[in-house]
Amino acid sequence: MHGLMQDWPLLCHKILDHAATQHGAREIVSRSVEGPIVRTTYAETRQRALKAAQLLEREGFAAGDRIATLAWNTGRHLEAWYGIMGVGGVYHTLNPRLFPEQIAWIMNHAEDKALFVDLTFVPLAEKIVPQVPSVKRVIVFTDKANMPQTSLPNAIAYEEWLADADGDFRWKQLEETAACGMCYTSGTTGDPKGVVYSHRSNVLHAMIALVPDAMGLSSRDTVLPVVPMFHANAWGLAQSAPMCGAKLVMPGGRMDGEAIYELLDTEKVTFTAAVPTVWLMLLQHLEETGKKLPHLKKVVIGGSACPRAMTKKFQENYDVEVIHAWGMTEMSPLGTLATIKPEYLELEGDAKLDIQQKQGFAPFGVEMKVTDDENHDQPWDGKTFGRLKVRGPAVARAYYGGAGTEQFDDEGWFDTGDVAHIDPQGYMQITDRAKDVIKSGGEWISTIDLENLAVGHPDVAEAAVIGIAHPKWDERPLLVVVRKPGKEPSKDELLGFMEGKIAKWWMPDDVVFVDEIPHTATGKIQKTTLRKQFETYELPTA
Amino acid sequence: MHGLMQDWPLLCHKILDHAATQHGAREIVSRSVEGPIVRTTYAETRQRALKAAQLLEREGFAAGDRIATLAWNTGRHLEAWYGIMGVGGVYHTLNPRLFPEQIAWIMNHAEDKALFVDLTFVPLAEKIVPQVPSVKRVIVFTDKANMPQTSLPNAIAYEEWLADADGDFRWKQLEETAACGMCYTSGTTGDPKGVVYSHRSNVLHAMIALVPDAMGLSSRDTVLPVVPMFHANAWGLAQSAPMCGAKLVMPGGRMDGEAIYELLDTEKVTFTAAVPTVWLMLLQHLEETGKKLPHLKKVVIGGSACPRAMTKKFQENYDVEVIHAWGMTEMSPLGTLATIKPEYLELEGDAKLDIQQKQGFAPFGVEMKVTDDENHDQPWDGKTFGRLKVRGPAVARAYYGGAGTEQFDDEGWFDTGDVAHIDPQGYMQITDRAKDVIKSGGEWISTIDLENLAVGHPDVAEAAVIGIAHPKWDERPLLVVVRKPGKEPSKDELLGFMEGKIAKWWMPDDVVFVDEIPHTATGKIQKTTLRKQFETYELPTA
Repeated sequence: MHGLMQDWPLLCHKILDHAATQHGAREIVSRSVEGPIVRTTYAETRQRALKAAQLLEREGFAAGDRIATLAWNTGRHLEAWYGIMGVGGVYHTLNPRLFPEQIAWIMNHAEDKALFVDLTFVPLAEKIVPQVPSVKRVIVFTDKANMPQTSLPNAIAYEEWLADADGDFRWKQLEETAACGMCYTSGTTGDPKGVVYSHRSNVLHAMIALVPDAMGLSSRDTVLPVVPMFHANAWGLAQSAPMCGAKLVMPGGRMDGEAIYELLDTEKVTFTAAVPTVWLMLLQHLEETGKKLPHLKKVVIGGSACPRAMTKKFQENYDVEVIHAWGMTEMSPLGTLATIKPEYLELEGDAKLDIQQKQGFAPFGVEMKVTDDENHDQPWDGKTFGRLKVRGPAVARAYYGGAGTEQFDDEGWFDTGDVAHIDPQGYMQITDRAKDVIKSGGEWISTIDLENLAVGHPDVAEAAVIGIAHPKWDERPLLVVVRKPGKEPSKDELLGFMEGKIAKWWMPDDVVFVDEIPHTATGKIQKTTLRKQFETYELPTA
Repeated sequence: MHGLMQDWPLLCHKILDHAATQHGAREIVSRSVEGPIVRTTYAETRQRALKAAQLLEREGFAAGDRIATLAWNTGRHLEAWYGIMGVGGVYHTLNPRLFPEQIAWIMNHAEDKALFVDLTFVPLAEKIVPQVPSVKRVIVFTDKANMPQTSLPNAIAYEEWLADADGDFRWKQLEETAACGMCYTSGTTGDPKGVVYSHRSNVLHAMIALVPDAMGLSSRDTVLPVVPMFHANAWGLAQSAPMCGAKLVMPGGRMDGEAIYELLDTEKVTFTAAVPTVWLMLLQHLEETGKKLPHLKKVVIGGSACPRAMTKKFQENYDVEVIHAWGMTEMSPLGTLATIKPEYLELEGDAKLDIQQKQGFAPFGVEMKVTDDENHDQPWDGKTFGRLKVRGPAVARAYYGGAGTEQFDDEGWFDTGDVAHIDPQGYMQITDRAKDVIKSGGEWISTIDLENLAVGHPDVAEAAVIGIAHPKWDERPLLVVVRKPGKEPSKDELLGFMEGKIAKWWMPDDVVFVDEIPHTATGKIQKTTLRKQFETYELPTA
């Protein structure tokens, strides 16, 4: 027996239609790449997205076509997304921080047919596009006056292009499972892998994100997504903000502390989201200038673990609530958020920070579990860690082209590659990456826990832990340390500092001092390089 | 091109699974029909729902089977719902306030195969079930000790029944569009019509309801659904509360002011929802006893228009925010909620009450429009009214058995039967029922507006307006008035009071005084009866 409810497919254009109908005059404020602040509304954004869709159709683009964007967060970028989706196309965000060869590889893999590009990235695109023969059209997010001389083929200024349409277009009606967006993840090893979002997954993800225990956004909020749209849909804010009619403030290309502060202040931003690095810059700016954050209520911090001191500063010095969050490109990206359950509502000070140091719990629409290597569920006791696996309507079931099949199992679980534990209240905490965890005598040792402990020593600037092959225990931990300038802590001093704070068998077998630890482009420790560096290293025999 | 996201069907059991996993120890507190307060949790509720599903399967019930419930809001009723849905069945709520013959007609129309019934309604069920041959099994929501002697066929006490299962059951995996629930609407004319909810519509409806601009529920809330589960899923709270892990307080059969106050107070309820009649009783109890509502934050008021004085009292005397809402059984039921958009945030006093008198705006997932009789869209100017039509994933596309097809059009719009206007900010206000509106010279006159104006006169106890046939204007308004005891306002006095407050052509052609105005069982004015009563009435000629 079927339900007798309306067939109302979850298509992304319905988000913009809703915003334009119910919140039509609400603003989208952008710091343009040209410089000035630009103001538009949801009603105008819909009208311009309709024009973009109309033009794409006129130029022969059709359902399923991948159309790349290489751009900062601006109103124009948002219009282009909805225009691309509205003609049935697939927006494909490119990360400008990758090497040109990597971007070209990704574009060729996706077979992108067109490119929307910011002025900033025209020189970068000029290096890439000649290597990507599928690209037939380039649209530069600017107006005719600011359009540069360019070797890009078939290039036009966005505003000039849009002026040629009247917006008399009806959104393409597709199945809700049709592709609408694409984003490649760049692991530390192997080729990048493409995640393909559907209209359904984007709409459901935005609904999941809006609830009070997740981001809790309303039409009364002013949202500043500092996290770029090329990082997993700006953590969904490109959909969830219009879905609830929140005012949007787009930072364009300037993400330094002063620039972010300026927008937070002048636009009275209530909600913002970004990686810890951005907040370090903002906090530094605030401390240097003595400025405050009277309007800001919530900041979502994710992408990498939020330092405890950062949470403390935001909450105690600026009265801004921190929501520590975790997700992945493969999860659209929200996985967990450390909002406060009623059991923890009375906590204050350090006890509250302890909870907020965890990555949080899963809202409805995200299932998670931790398993051992034999896929047995681990208990939710807040200490037994294992591989973190997730399931949900906004979680990938495969990568584009079939890469990485080993990460997906028959029951629909996606192996995140993270190692974590979950406490009895459902709060998850990442303890390691699966490929970094040290397996010693059948048990796991968290390298992140050891690193955090080691950097707690006042003379340590940075620390990394890797596993070294061991004839009896398979692997044993080696602690690699960068000392602070002018400090000379000894191996015994550091081990003495760690002793008693962790299980005995977790204690590193050795400590080595180096001048530098290798990092990835996004600032994470490059453990593959480190492991190669210590390939021939031999642990001392006891 | 398809998205590569997981196939994670929107099935109702996922709501309870999530509640049990992430909020397992959170309580469901019920005032039992036997008397005492009973406490359970989401984890236990899931376990008991699994047992119910296991037993239903063992007894031969299968996917698509309609299983009726005749019960108050209690934890047991909730368990039974999820048990029925978990075996693929369709819960069918019955309204005990209908006549036994009506209930029997509805059960026969739905071909219900089993019945879950509260102790209170065993005598009523004994009158009904013999008329419904499809019912093979009756389960009484009580334990063996409290099980009455009954003529009901194949009856068993719920607790005795449950004790026979171990809960080792896997929820049936269905298409998300499969039916999961059923509720009949009883119009003032014609046979009742069955609305058939799907798993998908119930899940999406709960997600729509949770967002801050709708109900805004979180795991930190304690929710008291006074609105019965047999009224359109307790306005969705039977799904949205477990979806966010809110503590649930179920009022059982006692809905008087004292009983409701007691639960609000002892369980520290933060959120509640019911029709105005319930709140009249509560406010009266509070005024008589001088009690306050320190825990309660929000009250959702719908089902019929919320009197302005009620909103004012809740907000000014008790610091409880009122959310005026509108919906229909056909809409699962949420349509609009009068939460406050940023444009209205600074309003206070009467200006704020003016907005809250409206039924509110539609969240994402509900589309609405007003049209004239020729289906032309009317402007959103806050005064031009027309037929209110809606669309969405939780809106019916048909009635069970095909009744009422004239209410559904080709573009998927459902004609609500209400007449309304929408203001430029998207706030909708009901001005009449379509069958009550007076059509005079091609223009519409709102009977509700005239009635509200007339009862504003200090000597008027109640007022009703109906259309009387007129040779030139088709219809003209007649005002029917019940005077307050001891008061004798004249026709001229009343018309003088109304003059200048409405358009001239809206002025009633005549006023008649009566001792009583006929009402329906739910307290609404019975205009069909009134129109029959004044069938031969002749308007005075000017």
